[in-house]
Amino acid sequence: MMELHKGPAIVAIGGGHGLSSILRGLKLYTDDLTAIVTVADDGGGSGMLREDLSMPPPGDIRNCMEALADTESIMQRLLSYRFGSGRLAGQAFGNLLLAALNGISGSFDEAVARMSDVLAITGRILPVTNANVVLEATFENGTSVQGESRIFSFKKAQNCRIREVRLLPENSPALPAALEAIRQADVVLLGPGSLYTSVVPNLLVDGIADAIRNSRALKIYVCNIMTQDGETEGLSASEHVAALFRHGGEGIVDICLCNDRAVPRRLLERYSREDAEPMRVDVENLERLGVQVVQRDLLDLEIDYARHSGVKVAETVLDLYRDCAETRIF
Amino acid sequence: MMELHKGPAIVAIGGGHGLSSILRGLKLYTDDLTAIVTVADDGGGSGMLREDLSMPPPGDIRNCMEALADTESIMQRLLSYRFGSGRLAGQAFGNLLLAALNGISGSFDEAVARMSDVLAITGRILPVTNANVVLEATFENGTSVQGESRIFSFKKAQNCRIREVRLLPENSPALPAALEAIRQADVVLLGPGSLYTSVVPNLLVDGIADAIRNSRALKIYVCNIMTQDGETEGLSASEHVAALFRHGGEGIVDICLCNDRAVPRRLLERYSREDAEPMRVDVENLERLGVQVVQRDLLDLEIDYARHSGVKVAETVLDLYRDCAETRIF
Repeated sequence: MMELHKGPAIVAIGGGHGLSSILRGLKLYTDDLTAIVTVADDGGGSGMLREDLSMPPPGDIRNCMEALADTESIMQRLLSYRFGSGRLAGQAFGNLLLAALNGISGSFDEAVARMSDVLAITGRILPVTNANVVLEATFENGTSVQGESRIFSFKKAQNCRIREVRLLPENSPALPAALEAIRQADVVLLGPGSLYTSVVPNLLVDGIADAIRNSRALKIYVCNIMTQDGETEGLSASEHVAALFRHGGEGIVDICLCNDRAVPRRLLERYSREDAEPMRVDVENLERLGVQVVQRDLLDLEIDYARHSGVKVAETVLDLYRDCAETRIF
Repeated sequence: MMELHKGPAIVAIGGGHGLSSILRGLKLYTDDLTAIVTVADDGGGSGMLREDLSMPPPGDIRNCMEALADTESIMQRLLSYRFGSGRLAGQAFGNLLLAALNGISGSFDEAVARMSDVLAITGRILPVTNANVVLEATFENGTSVQGESRIFSFKKAQNCRIREVRLLPENSPALPAALEAIRQADVVLLGPGSLYTSVVPNLLVDGIADAIRNSRALKIYVCNIMTQDGETEGLSASEHVAALFRHGGEGIVDICLCNDRAVPRRLLERYSREDAEPMRVDVENLERLGVQVVQRDLLDLEIDYARHSGVKVAETVLDLYRDCAETRIF
């Protein structure tokens, strides 16, 4: 029997809260949804499990599971439950579930697939690689630091911009299923999320950037609403896209999707105390990079953060896909 | 709609491997099965979680879940998975699952019920109490020790027998559902399992011993196959029953069910190195206590331990129940 799909094949690439927030929206608009998730995190509960069990970090995967799971189930409530005290203090149960599944599975991606089965999630979650990778950042002053969780404070100390990030070991191979999903995609989304620690690390895994550039998919960068302290303060939207081009090759983005809804003043004041400000959308520079600029209201008005509404992003992405499908031959 | 039950209402009371081994058999012979489980353990992974999270010990409950879960599911495999290294070394994933469920539930028994739902187990598992209890043993020389996990080595050091165990706090209330299950039971099984650390602690919870004695159920003590070093070395079957009477009141056992199949010599040699020997079934003394003695082949021949076959115990229990149902009015 043929499977009936509602909506285009969408691949969302990233990590952290940014990716999980748009997955919550996208799952309502398509049945063919794949999340490709970074495995470069080494802080917090994920860092503890990496260190203790020599496994890839589970946290970003767990966030995606939460976004795609049936919100009514007990397992869903358990995923985000954090232990309050003792040796497990702060650890999310979902991380431990993935760690145990990793223990009984032949590979990390198999463990992720089993977790998806247990939770009966909508869509598919793929770690970008099964390799145990470490992120290294090099700064404009020539210094460098290894370990995703150290980049923030190191950058603050250096007080200059990140020039480049790379993965160690270099040439870590992408999960074949991730490459195949990109090849088959109608739409590939990059971001939103931390530029250098959630989005770019995926492009550094061997084969991913080539697969995106060579894909017939519409490639949309969902640009962050705010700049991020310790990572991208002062950078404009075009500088974000330029960083994607530097790490993933020119042409890896067709459209830069930006928010144009004003962030409420009370939020701006709070963010400004963290050196974060609304993204400057420098349209001319973006177009000079060969990227089409789309500006829409993408703001989630229900929460006390300047974050993307998954539904608004999904609706806009579907609109852009339909426009594109009408005007170009796939 | 009425539920159709196959088999009598059986309540099995105990803890540890003894209880879980007979549950594996009993679940094949009745749909109305309740395990009432001790919560006095304070060693190993359970002890760590008690200490860190101030929760009742999950280990004995987890063993019962394993026995009653669908053996094909991934969750079942996960239950007994133990982490290999780091801060979680030796901890069973099932313990962490119950700990997290306890964190999102109003009470420990609610957490156990939710775990039963997640695993879709056959039968029902009830902690004997929601109280955080500690076991204290007093020896014939007047010394005493608190903490289940300390009893073994303390007894070895004292080199004399346990006179009495008690729970702290005294008068910890039984779970009402446990009392109700005992009241409704056709058969109540005590044991097999460690006399003072798995079976008797249940009788010390307020209301349990009275409920058993007052129940119309057939009360069977499934006597251990071997004595146990550090707990019951040298004790006969009647001395086991006498200990049950001392702690739970006279008449708490109708039948003492003993194994009469010879334990293979190779096993006896191994056990003798641990000061464990086949239980001496002193029929006259047992009958003097007003207890009927039933001796059958109860040995599991498939494993390299002298342990009960769940199926053989279940078949014998069903036989005894049928005989009893024919000859006495309930």
